[in-house]
Amino acid sequence: MVSQPIRVAIQGELGSFSEEAAVRLLGGDLQVLSFRHFDEVFRATAAGEADVCMVPLENSLTGSIHRNYDLLRRHQLKINRELYLEIQHNLIVLSGVQFDELSAVFSHPVALGQCERFFEDHPHLEMRTSHDTSGSVRELMEQQQRDCGAIAGSRAAELFGGEIIREAIQDNKANFTRFVLLSPKMKVSEDADKTSIVFSFRNVPGALFKSLSVFALRDIDLGKIESRPIHGRPWEYLFYLDFLACIKEERVNNALNHLREITEDLEVLGSYKRDEAVGIRGM
Amino acid sequence: MVSQPIRVAIQGELGSFSEEAAVRLLGGDLQVLSFRHFDEVFRATAAGEADVCMVPLENSLTGSIHRNYDLLRRHQLKINRELYLEIQHNLIVLSGVQFDELSAVFSHPVALGQCERFFEDHPHLEMRTSHDTSGSVRELMEQQQRDCGAIAGSRAAELFGGEIIREAIQDNKANFTRFVLLSPKMKVSEDADKTSIVFSFRNVPGALFKSLSVFALRDIDLGKIESRPIHGRPWEYLFYLDFLACIKEERVNNALNHLREITEDLEVLGSYKRDEAVGIRGM
Repeated sequence: MVSQPIRVAIQGELGSFSEEAAVRLLGGDLQVLSFRHFDEVFRATAAGEADVCMVPLENSLTGSIHRNYDLLRRHQLKINRELYLEIQHNLIVLSGVQFDELSAVFSHPVALGQCERFFEDHPHLEMRTSHDTSGSVRELMEQQQRDCGAIAGSRAAELFGGEIIREAIQDNKANFTRFVLLSPKMKVSEDADKTSIVFSFRNVPGALFKSLSVFALRDIDLGKIESRPIHGRPWEYLFYLDFLACIKEERVNNALNHLREITEDLEVLGSYKRDEAVGIRGM
Repeated sequence: MVSQPIRVAIQGELGSFSEEAAVRLLGGDLQVLSFRHFDEVFRATAAGEADVCMVPLENSLTGSIHRNYDLLRRHQLKINRELYLEIQHNLIVLSGVQFDELSAVFSHPVALGQCERFFEDHPHLEMRTSHDTSGSVRELMEQQQRDCGAIAGSRAAELFGGEIIREAIQDNKANFTRFVLLSPKMKVSEDADKTSIVFSFRNVPGALFKSLSVFALRDIDLGKIESRPIHGRPWEYLFYLDFLACIKEERVNNALNHLREITEDLEVLGSYKRDEAVGIRGM
């Protein structure tokens, strides 16, 4: 019996950071479904066209990606795994092309924006936008352009046979993105030791303190907490909270029941094995 | 005696969202010093070349701008005021130009990236990058280009005499940015009712709960809390916390002394009047 490859939906083309995250977590036997927009990624996964999707939730420089948290809740997907990926933008060219031959560089607008200093140091290089970091490498290779480079992750160079001639040209060197693997079903692995929840409450003084006490009283450590005002619903807050325990533990069950007494719309986003790569521990 | 205009440093050109925020808070009698990069803005203000600077700290879609929090601490600047500004990207053209005449649109890469759907709906329009949203409008006007548009805020159109022919073309309609006015000195106005602090602690279970208890025990409501792992210093966290009280109150003084017993590097970022425009209240 031949096993079916896992169908994973991502935003962007093959060779993107999302695909790199998927390959790191799931291995090579993947069928990657690429979409232009995040809402299409979530919709395809919720509809069963993909088994899972891999999306970024936060970045070390730019913070939480609130719109992906929103999509996660709207489509009722669950976090099955997490991965912290280091984001490096590289200048990629056709094999053999020298830096001096280049007159323009293609990439996604956001990647170009993260490499502003590089363009200031090399004012003869024109910035040109494309829809995708990885797609800009693919097009370079297809059209055999010798006077243009592209900015993308190393996986794009590997995949399309480009050559990296400048590594890590982004303005900020320490740049990590937290990716999560989502599916329509809550899957709690044996080694799960981290749980993500979201909840809200109306303008109740001291409510946040009471919410955190349900964990402190049961010796459950927290791994992330973030409050977010809900625009369009004045005086209401949304909370993202990660704690370092598995949803199957009795003390967690008790804590969540306690939390439901004092909050609204409590939702468990997933319970999974934490990625310890970047040194995140309880507090 | 003629009063000197206030020298305010911003990232970007005249007509940018930062300048719009500065004019809203300080009125029109300003000398705007514009810089290409945020670190130059902070450095100029710390060095006294500017009296104040206006910078974004968080956005409703993309979260906290961690690198600006970092710069704020590094340069020891203080928050004197805050403002929530609605971010709208508009398509701006030379007066009298029709939409059908356009073949390309200029803007900063980040703004282009926030208007992707607009470009998909109008595939004949080429995206072209410039260093600045507002600068792209200025250049359009200077060069009297009839076949190109620019994407920027309404203030840029006003300032350079451009015409807005498509309003609010960003993908996400509800888009707010919290700007803060910074100076080297802590200035606490009479009506100050909000205080921002930052602190860290090492891997101590329950430490976050203890930290929040110093406020709960004194009936001080919180307005924002965000934890952030410190990359490069594993197992350490940084906390951003806003609370709804003035630094001059005795209960606040007591709470901060209490907080110093259990944290490291506690720093008061400022105490100021809160902007209630988007309905943020204590919790």
